[in-house]
Amino acid sequence: MVGSVGNGLLDLGGREKVEPLPKEFDPEEIVDSLLHSESNIVGKEEDGTSRKIVLGRNVHTMCLEVKEPEADDEITGEREAYMAGVLARYRRSLIDRTKHHLGYPYNLDFDYGALIHLQHFSINNLGDPFIESNYGVHSRQFEVGVLDWFARLWELEKNEYWGYITNCGTEGNLHGILVGREVFPNGILYASKESHYSVFKAARMYRMECVKVATLVSGEIDCTDFRAKLVQNKEKPAIININIGTTVKGAVDDLDLVIQTLEENGFKDRFYIHCDGALFGLMMPFIKRVCATLISNSTSSFHYKQALNHNHASASLKSQQWSFGQAPKVTFKKPIGSVSVSGHKFVGCPVPCGVQITRLAHINALSSNVEYLASRDATIMGSRNGHAPIFLWYTLNRKGYQGFQKEVQKCLRNAHYLKNRLKEAGIGSMLNELSSTVVFERPKDEDFIRQWQLACEGNIAHVVVMPNVTIEKLDYFLRELLEKRSHWYQEGTISPPCLAAEIGEANCLCFSHKN
Amino acid sequence: MVGSVGNGLLDLGGREKVEPLPKEFDPEEIVDSLLHSESNIVGKEEDGTSRKIVLGRNVHTMCLEVKEPEADDEITGEREAYMAGVLARYRRSLIDRTKHHLGYPYNLDFDYGALIHLQHFSINNLGDPFIESNYGVHSRQFEVGVLDWFARLWELEKNEYWGYITNCGTEGNLHGILVGREVFPNGILYASKESHYSVFKAARMYRMECVKVATLVSGEIDCTDFRAKLVQNKEKPAIININIGTTVKGAVDDLDLVIQTLEENGFKDRFYIHCDGALFGLMMPFIKRVCATLISNSTSSFHYKQALNHNHASASLKSQQWSFGQAPKVTFKKPIGSVSVSGHKFVGCPVPCGVQITRLAHINALSSNVEYLASRDATIMGSRNGHAPIFLWYTLNRKGYQGFQKEVQKCLRNAHYLKNRLKEAGIGSMLNELSSTVVFERPKDEDFIRQWQLACEGNIAHVVVMPNVTIEKLDYFLRELLEKRSHWYQEGTISPPCLAAEIGEANCLCFSHKN
Repeated sequence: MVGSVGNGLLDLGGREKVEPLPKEFDPEEIVDSLLHSESNIVGKEEDGTSRKIVLGRNVHTMCLEVKEPEADDEITGEREAYMAGVLARYRRSLIDRTKHHLGYPYNLDFDYGALIHLQHFSINNLGDPFIESNYGVHSRQFEVGVLDWFARLWELEKNEYWGYITNCGTEGNLHGILVGREVFPNGILYASKESHYSVFKAARMYRMECVKVATLVSGEIDCTDFRAKLVQNKEKPAIININIGTTVKGAVDDLDLVIQTLEENGFKDRFYIHCDGALFGLMMPFIKRVCATLISNSTSSFHYKQALNHNHASASLKSQQWSFGQAPKVTFKKPIGSVSVSGHKFVGCPVPCGVQITRLAHINALSSNVEYLASRDATIMGSRNGHAPIFLWYTLNRKGYQGFQKEVQKCLRNAHYLKNRLKEAGIGSMLNELSSTVVFERPKDEDFIRQWQLACEGNIAHVVVMPNVTIEKLDYFLRELLEKRSHWYQEGTISPPCLAAEIGEANCLCFSHKN
Repeated sequence: MVGSVGNGLLDLGGREKVEPLPKEFDPEEIVDSLLHSESNIVGKEEDGTSRKIVLGRNVHTMCLEVKEPEADDEITGEREAYMAGVLARYRRSLIDRTKHHLGYPYNLDFDYGALIHLQHFSINNLGDPFIESNYGVHSRQFEVGVLDWFARLWELEKNEYWGYITNCGTEGNLHGILVGREVFPNGILYASKESHYSVFKAARMYRMECVKVATLVSGEIDCTDFRAKLVQNKEKPAIININIGTTVKGAVDDLDLVIQTLEENGFKDRFYIHCDGALFGLMMPFIKRVCATLISNSTSSFHYKQALNHNHASASLKSQQWSFGQAPKVTFKKPIGSVSVSGHKFVGCPVPCGVQITRLAHINALSSNVEYLASRDATIMGSRNGHAPIFLWYTLNRKGYQGFQKEVQKCLRNAHYLKNRLKEAGIGSMLNELSSTVVFERPKDEDFIRQWQLACEGNIAHVVVMPNVTIEKLDYFLRELLEKRSHWYQEGTISPPCLAAEIGEANCLCFSHKN
């Protein structure tokens, strides 16, 4: 439902089951106001259907009101009892919601019990990680350890990199693109249309000219279109956002081909590349050793390659390869400017966070001195969560490269398992190389989508197979999906939608494409 | 010491005592490289002394390296033991650092033990707080409760406000100023020179014209200068950052006078005001009921008023008032656009966070739809820490308006206690009305500054009296300061610096001004 008028209602219905928290709410009133409010903004889908997104007003559907304590609260203890009750119910709902979670790339499998005592401290890494602040309750020593690890992973020397631990993938993209703009103040930002929305937000915030580039069916940037757009703007330097895993399809842009395209078209030394590796930035380095046999039973892969081939000449080389790990490596030995990755995604972390690595040489252009902090000001945020680096440090130390490699292997295996079962059941689906994001037909029932927390766009939904997604969980999901689906598409009534536009004819299993 | 060459060394000296964590470090090597590196940037202070800030390289002074686990680690348990040891030492250092903390406005007095079980969940309020996302492990119901509380505090109706819980004060300023720019795309940003550095960072990020306005000795914006600057730029709308507590001096800008100045100079309906209430945004509403007798023993206040008077005509009215609470109230009943406040400051919270409240009408200009999230995109960040709203909700519920009022009272009383003791000891100091920030002579010894985590600028340092700063702690600090100071300024050698330029002649107790 994703913003449809029905959303409000269904949503609350779904929520009611798992979060019986106090709220003032009259569903009819809300629907009524949604239907009649002039401030609703009606969006048009590409398929012609319309979706309503309620932008004009705040729907206070769920709110735990803060109430002023009664004078005798300390004696009666009623306030404490009320709060304890709310928190207990909330915790129960979190357990349920964590169990039924497949759509967002968050590894929910972590145990930071050993760090529980640190929660009592206001740990704040304000300012620059490499310059001491006067504030002593920080965790810079952990932060720098984590940054060193990532700089090593992406092959940039200790004395040549700068970075920091961010609040999320968006902050990484905002930072990388800002560095690019400071290096090339009149540069144009290029990004494929399947880039994360924060990339386009950055362009708007920073008042940068922005050119959207077309994508292949896989979701990868289309370098033919990229070349055409570059040629139209030869006079200005290029700042490029490269996706190491697009948000919806998990597609990895071809870094080498992008660099080649830039250099062949007169942009040598006049470009800045930011790699948005929010999810796969940390998975890709570990993929190359994964055995190719993983996909040997993936019968659709050949068809998928054919589809790719059909769309873009340069894919022909790729289509002859039949193993993982052929994608261009992300490394600072190539002319890239920055890489960002999320910490709460593949690593797993209770708070959103990310890692940003760039070249130290670029940072001086960006920063200015802040005497109050005894620091330079090169981060987007000021105060910075000091717990996040400790979570990351803890997991990196425990798992190490080897541990991550095992987990990546498991994720890819399970993703292929899911994709194969979907195909067997006659459900159109796609799984990109180097990816654990399984794209498939959007379930018809919004309750089901919410129950499994699937992210959807147009006719497609996806499951991102993270380390906490086991075969058992996938089987549970598949059983429910197939059971429900048999009701949605009963013989003689509606048919499943055609997905050829989204995932290619070869992957679509609709009535016209299944043979 | 704030970036001087000596810093690196002393700093490590200071650190060594409290944080005996493994590091690879040779102090001589670092100092040597600092002295000879061409990439050092040398800044010039206004007083003519030079300070070196090391921008050209990363000083890996402190780093807890992430090491790949040995193959037999699971059997020997060595890795676990090593990590447990590091964490135990770190915790000990946090306890010490929390105890000796006076310079940053963080309330370190909180107990979130009741929320400890929530740390196991990856709680993420990605997207807009008022629009349901498909991701179910969120805490929007707490977030909206907290936002409602703040909207009520600043007198904006539920259906007229929009807001969200940010990662820190900087994100609040970035958001408020961005909203201002979207409302007035060609507006000029005005901010007093004592505004937080994030305000000037915003101007640079957003490519906005920015005009710095002079300040009074108190740190307040100088409206005479503001008027002069406005008159020079009549053709463009004005976006103004108002400080509800400046970072260094805790000065509160005169909101009413700013509005009056705008309206009298032809800017009616052509301005946007963002209130940066990082610290005092939450204290000010509770100050007005505090008894005026609190400052009755503050003998310097009259002199301070005289100094103010001397600097700015409009202060004459103020100087006749002799109680707290005469400062213009922050309320959306006045023509302001947004208010931000930090959550980890006066409230107290283990992670940096903040609250942003703006008018709903402004938000539609800013946002665009993001189908992936089933949400609009009106926040700066994407993924958002879902634990922070629960911390805030918990404290607001427990303390209520009454609890905050008591704490504000305690802070102001203790701040006056500190200022009076400093004056008695012959140390120049200043305490603004409506403020718990005591500004005084910068201690001569950098070890001492670091030990007490004092924030410094030029010749002044400050202590921000938060609820966790007791009379006992202040006495401990004063004893140490006076003891050390008797060595720094022995008779016949050096004298304490003159602070007339920073805090006014009336507050300075240097050799020339003490009588």
